[in-house]
This record gives sequence, structure tokens and C-alpha cells, in this order.
Amino acid sequence: MTQSSNKALVLLSGGQDSTTCLYWAIERFGRHNVSAISFDYGQRHRIELQCAGRTAKAAGVPHTCLPIDTFAALGGDALTDDSVDVPVDDEDGLPSTFVPGRNLVFLTFAAAYAWQHDVGNIVIGVAQTDYSGYPDCREQTIDALQQAIRLGMESSVTIHSPLMFLSKKETVELACDLGALQAMALTHTCYKGQRPPCGECAACRLRAKGFSEAGIEDPLLKVR
Amino acid sequence: MTQSSNKALVLLSGGQDSTTCLYWAIERFGRHNVSAISFDYGQRHRIELQCAGRTAKAAGVPHTCLPIDTFAALGGDALTDDSVDVPVDDEDGLPSTFVPGRNLVFLTFAAAYAWQHDVGNIVIGVAQTDYSGYPDCREQTIDALQQAIRLGMESSVTIHSPLMFLSKKETVELACDLGALQAMALTHTCYKGQRPPCGECAACRLRAKGFSEAGIEDPLLKVR
Repeated sequence: MTQSSNKALVLLSGGQDSTTCLYWAIERFGRHNVSAISFDYGQRHRIELQCAGRTAKAAGVPHTCLPIDTFAALGGDALTDDSVDVPVDDEDGLPSTFVPGRNLVFLTFAAAYAWQHDVGNIVIGVAQTDYSGYPDCREQTIDALQQAIRLGMESSVTIHSPLMFLSKKETVELACDLGALQAMALTHTCYKGQRPPCGECAACRLRAKGFSEAGIEDPLLKVR
Repeated sequence: MTQSSNKALVLLSGGQDSTTCLYWAIERFGRHNVSAISFDYGQRHRIELQCAGRTAKAAGVPHTCLPIDTFAALGGDALTDDSVDVPVDDEDGLPSTFVPGRNLVFLTFAAAYAWQHDVGNIVIGVAQTDYSGYPDCREQTIDALQQAIRLGMESSVTIHSPLMFLSKKETVELACDLGALQAMALTHTCYKGQRPPCGECAACRLRAKGFSEAGIEDPLLKVR
């Protein structure tokens, strides 16, 4: 099946990186060709989905949210399981926020949706550079999954990861170049689900480092 | 992560092929190392899950069922959507029973479960020979996904597809060799969800052809 090479589906988590990807896709494919998809997978912080919805609306693109009840049934990770502590410091090995297979599943469901809607491009905000210990953010993984999806769905879909080799600093600069800076006020990053953000968790610190190194003030910090 | 090379997880749909795989895994890895997993994905015929549970119990292996509510939300296919007719005859192209990404998602969730439980082997009853038009049953697809899973979960899991190059006739013969023939009375194949089976749908006809060519009576046909 040859899918439309003009249409793009952005995986929108409500965070900084996927929001930057949304604006990247709008610039590359045109706003009318872009849609966004989010997954309600039992994440601890429902605020992420609200942020995704607001971000898509502000960008003027349609937004779909699909449920995935399987991760909560699998249990045992910090993002969906209240009994697992959220890490504050870096750790050796895989962090407890690792949900095995999460990006693989998200991309596969996104590809199924794309297949049904004749969408030839999927955009995901994973980055190998600052990948926080998540092996499913690496280029090799994404490439292998693209191959599995193409073969498994007889699809010609392309998975784009425009942030793959950017540092957080460069991602902030890209967001500015794409006119997405103000949209960052709508995003959510904090592992603790706080708004304004806690500033202490690994996700908050990584985000702050990127803005600091880019010499740009994070508009999220002005939200009260 | 190096997972236990002795433990195996069988994807059990309640059908003939996955039941044969269950007995294959028991012979290869030993009953105490084998467990089974099924997915409640909103399939039209709940009888499949009952058959899977009964089959696992009869074989003496633990059985887990995980929910997946996403396919029903995606909609548009004959196995989960009541508005799509079940095909009776062969068709050109992908059959309407094709759920895009179904096996990719099943295998990825199975791999996540395996990762959590230190299981190094996953067994799935896909077959390229009689693959009924499903591209996610082909060896190339399974190989590509194994690579994506290994990379994405830092896993050493192996996906086994012992039926990949067997005809239905050979699968029936394998089931006999493994002592799984009587277990076939517990399985479910019919696309119409009938028990005894309708005998007319594509799935029933494929099953009947296999037993007929092997010269073996299908014990399911004796169930009343």
C-alpha cells in the first residue's frame, strides 16, 4: 500500500519535544496535512493529555486520542504504577520510568491509524543524544521498527525523528526557529506532574539545562 | 538484559495453530518453563479467550490474559467491528479480517511481559505458507520485529515461529506428533464464532483442508 507522502501524523505527548515535532511537521508538510495522535495509557499524570489537546488546538491541527489499557495491566513502572517511586537522580541501567515497549507500541498503533487514514509519515520526538537511558529512543530501534511496520502492514510509511541527534539546547533553538517557543508554555515535562514544574526531577532538570544552554527563557516558568 | 534461555511464553489465541505451538514449547522447554499469554482486544468472539484458558489449563501451564482496548477504538476491521462483514470467500488484496499491526502489537506486549518476567523465548503460531493474506505472519516481518524489540528493550529475546513454513497438513501432523491432537477439541477457529464450527468460512475451510490432507479426523467436529 502506497500511503500519501504529503500527510503526516505527529505523536503528541504534551511535552516539549513532541510539540517541537508538531511545528516541524507543520513547516515541512503544511498545516492542512498534519494531524496529531496521543495515547491514554494510564499515565500517572493526566495533565499530559490535556497539554497535548491544548497544544494541537493552538497549532490548529486535528487531534486523536487512543486508549491503551495494557501498560497499566502489565504494571511495574513508575509512569503508570503508583507503587513505583519516580527517580529524582540519574541511575545506572534502565531507569524505573522505562515502560518496556512503550515507543514500539505507540509507533505501531500510530502506524495502524496512519494505514487506515492513508497517512505516509509519522513524526516522533525521540532523541538519541539526551535519550535518558531509554533504548527505544535510539535511531537503530526506530529504523528496525519502521522495517517491521512496513513489512507487517504492507505499508510505505516513513517514521521521522527530527530531534534524533539534537541536544536539548538544539531542540530549544529549533523550537524558536519554528515559531514554537510560545507553545512551550502549554507543554508538560515534570515527572511529578506539577504545574508549574517541580524543577527537581530528572525531566525538569534536562529541560532547564536545554533552555539555559540556549540562553532562552522557558515560557512554561512564567505560567502561574 | 540477558533473559532466561529456558523460559518460554506462548501467544495463545485459542486456535489450532497456537495450541500446537503450546505443545511444541512444552516439548522443547519443559512444561515447568512454559507459560501462555492471550489478549482480550475486543475480538468479536469471546469464545476464543475461553478456549485459550481451557487449553492452557488442560496443558498444565499458567495463563495470563492482558486487555488491549486500542484496536476497538481504531475500528474498521471484521474481527472487532460488527459493522464489517466477515469474508466467506477469498479476496484480492488484504482481507477485511486484517487488523493492521495486530501481531506486531501482540508480540511487543508479549515481549514487555517477557522482559518483566525474565523470559527469553516467545512462541507464536504464525505461518507464511498458509498465511491467508496477512503480511504480519511472514518470517521477514517477525525477524524485523525481533530486531526492533531487542534494540528497544535491550533484550535478548528470541521469537520462535515453529509453524512458519508448514502447511496446514503438516501442522496437523505436528500436533499429532506432539500429542496435541485431543487438545484440538478445545480450540476455536471459525470466523463466525460457531461451535461446532460453521464449516463454510475461510478459516473453517482452511482447517478442514489440513485435517483432510493429513488423513486425520478433527476432534473438534465430534464436539456437540
